[in-house]
Amino acid sequence: MTGDNSVFIGNKPFMNYVTSVVMQFTTKNAPEVIVKARGKFISRAVDVSEVAAKRFLDKQVDVKEIKIDSEEFENKEGKRVRVSTIEIVLKKK
Amino acid sequence: MTGDNSVFIGNKPFMNYVTSVVMQFTTKNAPEVIVKARGKFISRAVDVSEVAAKRFLDKQVDVKEIKIDSEEFENKEGKRVRVSTIEIVLKKK
Repeated sequence: MTGDNSVFIGNKPFMNYVTSVVMQFTTKNAPEVIVKARGKFISRAVDVSEVAAKRFLDKQVDVKEIKIDSEEFENKEGKRVRVSTIEIVLKKK
Repeated sequence: MTGDNSVFIGNKPFMNYVTSVVMQFTTKNAPEVIVKARGKFISRAVDVSEVAAKRFLDKQVDVKEIKIDSEEFENKEGKRVRVSTIEIVLKKK
């Protein structure tokens, strides 16, 4: 999780991320929350967004925009590797 | 893969899906191709879309729209299960 209302999805327990998203909207009164992930955590980012928006914040929060992209970097063996990224922007209605 | 220019992502070899997407645009001259996936295959759908659009069809194809949703169904034990879905619409420029 970073400062600007972003929640970065990794391998912590699933509900930690859902709670983070929900609390940004409720406790911190954020107008938007961006759920971000890379590689295999992209599926999880979609799950977190769906559960937060539909189960916990139903009729209060919508998916505003989804962006996908690729990042390239060199791995430990010096080989260029491509990894996909996702940003799911959730917005208070 | 279904009839209407959709490619449904599962656990076949990765490049099968990339080739399907690319061929829909090239051989079949489709104006749009929809990459669809559920659950853990969502990350893969993003990978397929990124590789097809950026490595194989660079400057020819864009991501037009991305939709996420949830489906509910009963599993074998009669328990209600929620699964996330994604649809990535790729469009010829």
